[in-house]
Amino acid sequence: MKNFMGEAIKEAEKSLILGEVPVGVVIVRDNIIIAKAHNLRETLQDPLAHAEILAIKKASQYTNNWRLSGCSMYVTLEPCPMCAGAILQSRISKVYIGTFEPNTGACGSVINILQNDNLNRWTNVYWNYDKKCSSILEEFFSKKR
Amino acid sequence: MKNFMGEAIKEAEKSLILGEVPVGVVIVRDNIIIAKAHNLRETLQDPLAHAEILAIKKASQYTNNWRLSGCSMYVTLEPCPMCAGAILQSRISKVYIGTFEPNTGACGSVINILQNDNLNRWTNVYWNYDKKCSSILEEFFSKKR
Repeated sequence: MKNFMGEAIKEAEKSLILGEVPVGVVIVRDNIIIAKAHNLRETLQDPLAHAEILAIKKASQYTNNWRLSGCSMYVTLEPCPMCAGAILQSRISKVYIGTFEPNTGACGSVINILQNDNLNRWTNVYWNYDKKCSSILEEFFSKKR
Repeated sequence: MKNFMGEAIKEAEKSLILGEVPVGVVIVRDNIIIAKAHNLRETLQDPLAHAEILAIKKASQYTNNWRLSGCSMYVTLEPCPMCAGAILQSRISKVYIGTFEPNTGACGSVINILQNDNLNRWTNVYWNYDKKCSSILEEFFSKKR
């Protein structure tokens, strides 16, 4: 199996160079990466330009279908409510998460949107811890201080 | 005060004509509409193309700023988790909602993302019921059956 989380980390490194909070995503179908993206909120001055949102948009354009069922997302940081909601909307089947987000994480840390019996969708979540996913965030925030 | 919910309903009517679930949004700053949008998910084959997301993107482009604090959103239907999360991300200050969404509503009906003390943002929510907001949805779904 390819190291898809490693590819997501390479995306996060692109955000870091731009001075953005370093988060990266790849979306995989049939063991092939069909979309990659990194956080560009400040660069684009777009509150929606989280890595997950940009990657879902690219994957839908690639497949020409808003339904991404059968696809997996590898994301370096636990998605926020917006991105977890977008994952539900897109019908992505599996989400692999590189590290947790204690303040806004919407996949179990603060709330759980991906696995909530009261909502009408459910997504498989796998915690795919990689020290680099958290260390790149620590590097970013230590420079901010 | 202008009838901003009426303008949002006009947007929802555009979705209805396209065969989309009829949801419309306007975003207002200083009593002026700076962005309007309607649901285009099927038309664009984009899982992110809910009215709220499209309107937030337009408003950020208009203001050239990802922070929409001071802006109000008028939306004909209670936002889903993705859109409620996007409202938090964009720092929109007030949300006026035309009717509730019993299956996916993320502003109190199923979960509450806009007013959750465990998340690090909070948005003012006003229920601005208008019969047209629900009747246009009933019209759409009665045709689907």
